[in-house]
Amino acid sequence: MSTTLAELARLVEGRVQGDGERRIEAVRTLESAGPNDLSFLTNPRYRAAAAASAAGAVLVGEPASGLGGVDLLVAKDPYLALARILSHLHPQPKPAPGIHPSAIVDGNARIDAAASVGAGCIIGRDSRIEADVVLHPGVVVGEGCEIGSGSELHPGVVLYARTSIGRRCIIHGGAVLGSDGFGFATHAGGHEKIPQLGRVVIEDDVEIGANTTIDRAMLEETRIGAGTKIDNLVQIGHNVQIGAGSLLAGQSGVAGSANLGKGTILAGQAGVAGHLEIGDGARVAAASAVFKSVPAGSTVAGIPAREVGAWRREQALIRRLAELQRRLKAVEEALAEKGDQGD
Amino acid sequence: MSTTLAELARLVEGRVQGDGERRIEAVRTLESAGPNDLSFLTNPRYRAAAAASAAGAVLVGEPASGLGGVDLLVAKDPYLALARILSHLHPQPKPAPGIHPSAIVDGNARIDAAASVGAGCIIGRDSRIEADVVLHPGVVVGEGCEIGSGSELHPGVVLYARTSIGRRCIIHGGAVLGSDGFGFATHAGGHEKIPQLGRVVIEDDVEIGANTTIDRAMLEETRIGAGTKIDNLVQIGHNVQIGAGSLLAGQSGVAGSANLGKGTILAGQAGVAGHLEIGDGARVAAASAVFKSVPAGSTVAGIPAREVGAWRREQALIRRLAELQRRLKAVEEALAEKGDQGD
Amino acid sequence: MSTTLAELARLVEGRVQGDGERRIEAVRTLESAGPNDLSFLTNPRYRAAAAASAAGAVLVGEPASGLGGVDLLVAKDPYLALARILSHLHPQPKPAPGIHPSAIVDGNARIDAAASVGAGCIIGRDSRIEADVVLHPGVVVGEGCEIGSGSELHPGVVLYARTSIGRRCIIHGGAVLGSDGFGFATHAGGHEKIPQLGRVVIEDDVEIGANTTIDRAMLEETRIGAGTKIDNLVQIGHNVQIGAGSLLAGQSGVAGSANLGKGTILAGQAGVAGHLEIGDGARVAAASAVFKSVPAGSTVAGIPAREVGAWRREQALIRRLAELQRRLKAVEEALAEKGDQGD
Repeated sequence: MSTTLAELARLVEGRVQGDGERRIEAVRTLESAGPNDLSFLTNPRYRAAAAASAAGAVLVGEPASGLGGVDLLVAKDPYLALARILSHLHPQPKPAPGIHPSAIVDGNARIDAAASVGAGCIIGRDSRIEADVVLHPGVVVGEGCEIGSGSELHPGVVLYARTSIGRRCIIHGGAVLGSDGFGFATHAGGHEKIPQLGRVVIEDDVEIGANTTIDRAMLEETRIGAGTKIDNLVQIGHNVQIGAGSLLAGQSGVAGSANLGKGTILAGQAGVAGHLEIGDGARVAAASAVFKSVPAGSTVAGIPAREVGAWRREQALIRRLAELQRRLKAVEEALAEKGDQGD
Repeated sequence: MSTTLAELARLVEGRVQGDGERRIEAVRTLESAGPNDLSFLTNPRYRAAAAASAAGAVLVGEPASGLGGVDLLVAKDPYLALARILSHLHPQPKPAPGIHPSAIVDGNARIDAAASVGAGCIIGRDSRIEADVVLHPGVVVGEGCEIGSGSELHPGVVLYARTSIGRRCIIHGGAVLGSDGFGFATHAGGHEKIPQLGRVVIEDDVEIGANTTIDRAMLEETRIGAGTKIDNLVQIGHNVQIGAGSLLAGQSGVAGSANLGKGTILAGQAGVAGHLEIGDGARVAAASAVFKSVPAGSTVAGIPAREVGAWRREQALIRRLAELQRRLKAVEEALAEKGDQGD
Repeated sequence: MSTTLAELARLVEGRVQGDGERRIEAVRTLESAGPNDLSFLTNPRYRAAAAASAAGAVLVGEPASGLGGVDLLVAKDPYLALARILSHLHPQPKPAPGIHPSAIVDGNARIDAAASVGAGCIIGRDSRIEADVVLHPGVVVGEGCEIGSGSELHPGVVLYARTSIGRRCIIHGGAVLGSDGFGFATHAGGHEKIPQLGRVVIEDDVEIGANTTIDRAMLEETRIGAGTKIDNLVQIGHNVQIGAGSLLAGQSGVAGSANLGKGTILAGQAGVAGHLEIGDGARVAAASAVFKSVPAGSTVAGIPAREVGAWRREQALIRRLAELQRRLKAVEEALAEKGDQGD
């Protein structure tokens, strides 16, 4: 698909600084873009690469300082503009509707005629799959599941019985939703299983990463709020509630019965212990472990996690421990000398 | 299924404080329970919710203090009682025995007539599957595996060749057992693979979480002791031995050739380095990393992990570093002043 | 297969100290080896076990001190020698070439006649699979993928569209390659998906662990260099470049757009934040989190990671904080006393 810089500017409600009639055929990285490509500078870290790029045009944010004469597409939010331009220039084809003959669909499952069920998929009894759903090959849907319209499940996804997926969700390969929570009553040295009878509910517009696992609730629902995005290899324990619009980065984990508010962020490899409350908009830094509840709007870091400013000050003090020790020794020696003098 | 509070009390060897004839139809959370439901208070954190609950009856531990007139089912170990009541009130149906026509079973595999093999399962040569085993859809069993009676493997589980699963085990979706250990001999800048010729042995009554990985031994056995419970996304390296009755929480990891004793506990995201000995009953706190062996019965925390009391004291001292620095400065100034006076 | 100690010595360019005509039938651990077995001592930690072993012969490194009269096979690099002896004594059979009748292969995929495609595999349009490739059962290969000669993909591996695998690679069960990167433009409280249009390229001789996930690039390539070995449950974000001959241990993670040089090492549960440069030969200690770029050849540890010597000194000082506090208190009291005396 080919277009002009000016058309792209209209698409993203931006403006052109340079030649609006320049033809754009693709979006490429700064290193590989040529004269018919748009590239982008959304991270100031890459400013030198942008200046050296052979790109015909570069997408930048406001205020737009020049990049050595290259045409600029200036947008208020260049990362958002990038999302929209990529979708426009590189539309992704969807598989045709229909059920692959190798799929095994229970007679009591209801599959909308506009859904696509790939090779080797297995759909359990009483499950309901709405229009425009795409099940890529090898997806296993247990009994009594629901998958809302427009959702896409990649190969190898497993839904245990009664899992509910909203509309326009994307579930990546190998994710397992609805597995039993980790609940045992320890008795006389043995661990007796607490039956896990609830389910997993994924609201609309959620994306879930590859090989991520979300356990069913013990009794009711583990629930992922609308618009939340979860990365790869994330663990969500039973009974967890995650508010709308949250972001959970790769290898983060949330232990059982924790509640995350709306718009919370867990950075990579962060962990939240069980039964805690993480307030709306709270953020947890990468590789941190949260052992007590976090107020709304605050940012925490460290193991155990604490307010990020306090954590930074402590880190700075730890870096100065050798100096502190030397100063203390000097004070001790000065005192000893005075003591000697005083005797 | 409907019963009375008194019958449930008999089941769990507890006692009723209130109306033993109250009919109970289900177990529900404190928030959603109604007059025909039993709820439970097993974590004191939820005492206020229990007082506000509309539950007909509440399961509590000893000593049982009143909860505003609601009927109580009092049990010595309420969490254990909960496990038994849930199993009693909500029995889980098992799939009927038989081999789904889409399953691909090698002619030299032996499947007990009382086992259930789901759609799309693939069973390799010389594997043996005992009575009452349930293989949910899409399980891949390699050559020469054994699965003991009553075990249940959820969708997408992969057993490499010669993996042995005991009786009454539960393996959750996407778990991979028997993959090669991570062993390479580095030579002239390259990494030459050490063949991984051993296998994985899972003893009886083990539960393994979704997408957990357990590597085969280099030569002999990676072994998970009877009654051990492993959560989701846990990594177990080659040659590891885990004693009976251990608990490994989500995203924890054990590197190659480590030995964990009986009844050990790894909390979430904890790690154990290779070749270590973790003594019987030892516990590792969440997000901790164990770099040296841990004596039996001790609890360790931190990175690197140390005795938990020492770790707590250090954390408290780190919190006071700014104060220490201020006090040191005050001492230095006082000394300087005295020095001036003395001159 | 049976051989003699002298023949094995020739194979590994080592020497025999003892009876070169001793027959060797297998390699076993020190604990289980008998008189016709070779065992090995590659880690000094196990010296006592070696001395107590009933092994007929033991493989050791230089300098070879005696082990109580047992025959020794002495090799300059005993671990490398072990790799070669295991491959020689225990050759692993490969499945016969051919496509299992249950596999679903798109009419436009090209499968070499010398490749083996297992039961239940699904191969997408325009994919190309070279000679001597082994796809174990249940592998899903998307459209337009390439798998180089001699590579082996274990059960449940998922390749998204256009993934390229080099020659002689090993991909373990459940690994997902080519899933979407975690990229969203946050706008008015919502997270708009940045289309992920690139792909994953795995160079020759790479091994990838079970349930590991590697995201496709946003635009071009996420690339894993030749000879790199990646363990289980590792997360590699979009656009990441990993140099040749690197080692990434279990549960480590690399966030988006980070570049790792050649021969880098991430120990278990280590993490690298996005957009960083990790220089050639750099090493990251277990359970560490790298928040800024690391120079070539250096070793870092801690959260945040810093030069390992500095980290060790800080850890030693933290262990002495209680003592520092006591000494400061003593100084304060001494000063107060002097102040009293001075008044």
